[in-house]
Amino acid sequence: MIEVYSWATPNGHKVHIMLEECGLPYRVIPVDIGSGAQFDPAFLAISPNNKIPAIVDPEGPDGKPLSLFESGAILLYLAGKTGKYLPAGTAAKYEVLEWLMFQMGSVGPMLGQAHHFRIYAPEKIEYAIERYSNEAHRLYNVINKRLGLSPYIGGKAYSIADIAVFPWLRSWKNQGVEMSEFPHLKGWFDEIASRPAVQRGVQVLAAARKPMMDETARENLFGATQYKRH
Amino acid sequence: MIEVYSWATPNGHKVHIMLEECGLPYRVIPVDIGSGAQFDPAFLAISPNNKIPAIVDPEGPDGKPLSLFESGAILLYLAGKTGKYLPAGTAAKYEVLEWLMFQMGSVGPMLGQAHHFRIYAPEKIEYAIERYSNEAHRLYNVINKRLGLSPYIGGKAYSIADIAVFPWLRSWKNQGVEMSEFPHLKGWFDEIASRPAVQRGVQVLAAARKPMMDETARENLFGATQYKRH
Ligand SMILES: N[C@@H](CCC(=O)N[C@@H](CS)C(=O)NCC(=O)O)C(=O)O
Ligand SMILES: N[C@@H](CCC(=O)N[C@@H](CS)C(=O)NCC(=O)O)C(=O)O
Repeated sequence: MIEVYSWATPNGHKVHIMLEECGLPYRVIPVDIGSGAQFDPAFLAISPNNKIPAIVDPEGPDGKPLSLFESGAILLYLAGKTGKYLPAGTAAKYEVLEWLMFQMGSVGPMLGQAHHFRIYAPEKIEYAIERYSNEAHRLYNVINKRLGLSPYIGGKAYSIADIAVFPWLRSWKNQGVEMSEFPHLKGWFDEIASRPAVQRGVQVLAAARKPMMDETARENLFGATQYKRH
Repeated sequence: MIEVYSWATPNGHKVHIMLEECGLPYRVIPVDIGSGAQFDPAFLAISPNNKIPAIVDPEGPDGKPLSLFESGAILLYLAGKTGKYLPAGTAAKYEVLEWLMFQMGSVGPMLGQAHHFRIYAPEKIEYAIERYSNEAHRLYNVINKRLGLSPYIGGKAYSIADIAVFPWLRSWKNQGVEMSEFPHLKGWFDEIASRPAVQRGVQVLAAARKPMMDETARENLFGATQYKRH
């Protein structure tokens, strides 16, 4: 059974949703990133960048166990293992890949910075709040325009590109965005949100995650590191 | 011949280097992002996130032209087209993919924020400079540790993971990092830098890029957008 090292955050949800969509049995191992569990040497051996999600598949390719970090790589691996949510046709496949990379390179990191400066940072820094709120707004526009031209983010069919983007847009309020201003995006969002596998995926570990950002969590997420600079 | 819409920046260099390594003929179409060329509707039709690099391969799969944005997707496509720099063996392939995703999701976006707050932002904001300099330092440590365990970033062989990470580390000074503090990383960096294809790749468009960040460039890169918020 696939072991999923994870937490109830957008990057964790991607993998929970994909496993649910594929109907693959899995076991969740909580990694409480607020209490610093991502710095545990056993976890770092699997995920050297000290981030969830990571997986271990005891029945990996070549008949050997495979461990893997980075949600984008995990989605590609699970798509390869099951033949699901990534088209086999070459042009259609690369269309999904470019939008998956757009999620990995822009949607995740930039909305993450919006969360940081709007919600979590101990100081309110106007320049940074403005910068990342503008970027969030720009990204919602890019996605909205895309979904006016294409039923799904990666093209004609539901794919790992939708699974990657969706969990990040659930927190639109924290990103300073009004989802209803983006009608194509909103229609797509509601459709994805209604999928039973998606509903199960976003519930994974929901009860374990503490709702508040306390001092310990702040230190572990923004202060602590495997590698001290000063 | 493959058309490359690009500029002399780290994400552009990845594609220039890959094309040089593969010996594929290509034609560069400069997209001067400092003067706002990324907002040209013709370019947006290829690259809807208004970023370089993008390519058009007139001899794409299915015998039809293929256009593609996002450097990570382009690297995967060129690796698929040529059979180079991405191992075919499944476990080795996913090892490259996780490190490629690490570049796309952390190295690129976070070092980009370090550049922004350390060099380009009109105000010097101590909190943000500290945040992204710490993150740069952390990432160099992650890479250094990896390169103490593995000769190349993606595993035993030179791969698209090295090609993706290398161009970002050329600007270590702007990231507040001292490269010589990271001996495994430095050894790898020097080896990659000495490859003739890499040397040709980083020269592409070097003469076209203006060295200074002037008011127009600042507005186009940090102010202008396809989508006005206010
Ligand atoms: N690019 C990575 C990002 C993963 C990531 O940012 N994970 C966060 C939670 S959503 C984390 O584990 N943070 C803990 C830390 O950085 O210390 C991916 O897509 O898997
Ligand atoms: N995730 C993208 C990032 C591309 C990117 O950030 N490109 C920058 C130059 S290095 C750009 O075109 N910026 C112009 C803009 O955002 O307006 C990739 O890897 O291709």
